Amino acid sequence: MRAEIIGCGTELLLGHTINTNAAYLSNTLSRIGIDVFRHITVGDNKERLTEAVENCLSRADIVIVTGGLGPTVDDITMGTLAGVANKDLVFNKEIYKHIKEHFKKQFLKAPKDAIKQALIPRDSTWLKNNVGTAPGLIIKHEDKQIVALPGPPRELIPMVEKDLLQYLVKLEPQKWTIISRPIKLIGLPEPVVNEKVKDLLELSGHTTVGIYEHLGEVELRITAKANTKEKADSHIKKIEGKIRRRLKEYIYGAGDETLEGAVGTVLIAKKKTLAIAESCTGGLLSNFITNVPGSSKYYRGSVIAYSDDIKIKRLNVPKDIIKKQGAVSKETASAMAENVRQFAESDIGLGVTGIAGPTGATKTKPIGLVYIALSTKKKKLVKEFHFLGSREEIKFRAARQALWLIRFALL
Amino acid sequence: MRAEIIGCGTELLLGHTINTNAAYLSNTLSRIGIDVFRHITVGDNKERLTEAVENCLSRADIVIVTGGLGPTVDDITMGTLAGVANKDLVFNKEIYKHIKEHFKKQFLKAPKDAIKQALIPRDSTWLKNNVGTAPGLIIKHEDKQIVALPGPPRELIPMVEKDLLQYLVKLEPQKWTIISRPIKLIGLPEPVVNEKVKDLLELSGHTTVGIYEHLGEVELRITAKANTKEKADSHIKKIEGKIRRRLKEYIYGAGDETLEGAVGTVLIAKKKTLAIAESCTGGLLSNFITNVPGSSKYYRGSVIAYSDDIKIKRLNVPKDIIKKQGAVSKETASAMAENVRQFAESDIGLGVTGIAGPTGATKTKPIGLVYIALSTKKKKLVKEFHFLGSREEIKFRAARQALWLIRFALL
Repeated sequence: MRAEIIGCGTELLLGHTINTNAAYLSNTLSRIGIDVFRHITVGDNKERLTEAVENCLSRADIVIVTGGLGPTVDDITMGTLAGVANKDLVFNKEIYKHIKEHFKKQFLKAPKDAIKQALIPRDSTWLKNNVGTAPGLIIKHEDKQIVALPGPPRELIPMVEKDLLQYLVKLEPQKWTIISRPIKLIGLPEPVVNEKVKDLLELSGHTTVGIYEHLGEVELRITAKANTKEKADSHIKKIEGKIRRRLKEYIYGAGDETLEGAVGTVLIAKKKTLAIAESCTGGLLSNFITNVPGSSKYYRGSVIAYSDDIKIKRLNVPKDIIKKQGAVSKETASAMAENVRQFAESDIGLGVTGIAGPTGATKTKPIGLVYIALSTKKKKLVKEFHFLGSREEIKFRAARQALWLIRFALL
Repeated sequence: MRAEIIGCGTELLLGHTINTNAAYLSNTLSRIGIDVFRHITVGDNKERLTEAVENCLSRADIVIVTGGLGPTVDDITMGTLAGVANKDLVFNKEIYKHIKEHFKKQFLKAPKDAIKQALIPRDSTWLKNNVGTAPGLIIKHEDKQIVALPGPPRELIPMVEKDLLQYLVKLEPQKWTIISRPIKLIGLPEPVVNEKVKDLLELSGHTTVGIYEHLGEVELRITAKANTKEKADSHIKKIEGKIRRRLKEYIYGAGDETLEGAVGTVLIAKKKTLAIAESCTGGLLSNFITNVPGSSKYYRGSVIAYSDDIKIKRLNVPKDIIKKQGAVSKETASAMAENVRQFAESDIGLGVTGIAGPTGATKTKPIGLVYIALSTKKKKLVKEFHFLGSREEIKFRAARQALWLIRFALL
């Protein structure tokens, strides 16, 4: 089966919003063997949306429209699709009940406008929105399917995963399935990774490998196409094995695994607790750690010692070190790691200090210079890094590198 | 003038790459008065790209194709455009010289394939790529312009800014300029904001207002089209005045201003310093604060008191409060705010405690319940919130709300 995807929204045509839904849907549909042949974006304009839907229907079996399902006059998707399918809009009690409940949960009354979101084309199927008020929609139109989904990805994604995929899978016995599996690395620059897997990147045919870089992390994405999930999985497994043998210690995860999740897994396995003293990362590292559900099992807390005063008075970094070696130094990072471990009574202490910029650099200490130290009862280590990029990028790279260091030290 | 943008690349249709070029180009073209009416994405397929280009040419004055300019057999854009314009491909010496130099800079010899990138349609204008090897292209076709740009944003953006915009501006004395200004709000749910500016959202014509919601924050985006920048600015100013009068205290900024930046501005103006005790937000709030360059002027530091032990031993939250009222309570939040102020010797202390989920809820304390307290020498306040969403969304909403509270308390 072939699908085409239409994004509806003037904010997309003005470039105020990047259309991530098209990529997400394409990727997701390919998993169940549906090929996506075209993405189209139009503004909140009934005539142009109608033209786009009819144009896509002339080629594709499934047309998915994202966006334009809100309660305002700008939101034209429901009315337009009803027109294309030649149905009238009818009030759906159940949807309205769901909308009222959504507002009630936030201690709000549903505004008058909200009733518009309960109007859907006659004889269509609606999909529950567990995150917002706009329902999704499936209209069977002749032998084709017209689908409408809410624009915000946080509403669209759960609706697709929960209901739409199941519906689409049932339409046709699957001929092909495409599976993609990202292998995630940190600690090696992209050209070095490239060199090590060059032969795999040149694979063509039903199994391929792509390389992507994002702020110091590298992803190797294996994609396999086969007539059964089992076969595709087995192709992927073979290539994944090769990659793992070549790049072992730099791989922190695959698939949905995150670096912070991998750190949590090791800490739980080793029964160790963690505390952090952050300076230049300013809370970002702790934020990564606490994004993992259940992190309270191993993470005790942090001190964000942004001012030298706090480093000295609360983390007991000797005043002399700050004066002589400086707040950005191996010695300060080590003292921070050592003392936050005692402050929080944890097994592991981590200290991060550096210069995130754009100001604060000196002749010997450039922007991007970061020291990361780790302390346990038996082990002390400290490493120097030079990161490139904006203030936020340097914070990001330093926090990710610190996560990698925890995992590295424990394995 | 009207433009339509075509993205060419199978990686876009597989969802492996998000098409950010379409948004960037739309935004950039609107600055010089060119309206973008449609985005289309097709795969690396000559027939479908031809159809898309011809379709766009039937409506638009300018058709921009991004991607497909590489040296491999998959890269079909040059050949396809030559076909559409009915020109043959000719070898361009200058381009080839530039390609060889590009490789030389990296101490590499140009591979054989590279010659393909020096073939362009006869009578067309090429645009130099200062980052990679693929040249850009402009073909005058009847009274229209067909433009080709490389796919990677780091190659495309400099080419647009350096050459393409100047070319397009000269095509037509500018009749129109479009300016957009976002007004940013926090603390009011979207339906309530909607209600207050309903008449403005229904404006049509050359000045319009759009409403967008993102995790508890609302953006009202004013867009004005006029024949001079001054007139567009004056239209925007008028509407902005109306919005500000109606929603005054909930507006934290406009244009590029951020909430964390606005908090910094107030703290500097009032000469106050800040310290934070975070529990459920786990560092995210401090991270926002420290994303602002120069935040060390007013931000002293934080304690991320994730375990009750740290709350009790290091932030002096009375054990009794944790036992009776609980770690997630008004009393705990207040004690955290009060004591972190003393811990960090700051003017203002902020305390945040709550349940980010997915576990940890009790009958009386649901996921999303968050208390935020603020303490100064003279002022104490604490507020209860109920946030919806995933663990990360609840952290985000709570951190943003806390920023708002700091600003609210200071103004």
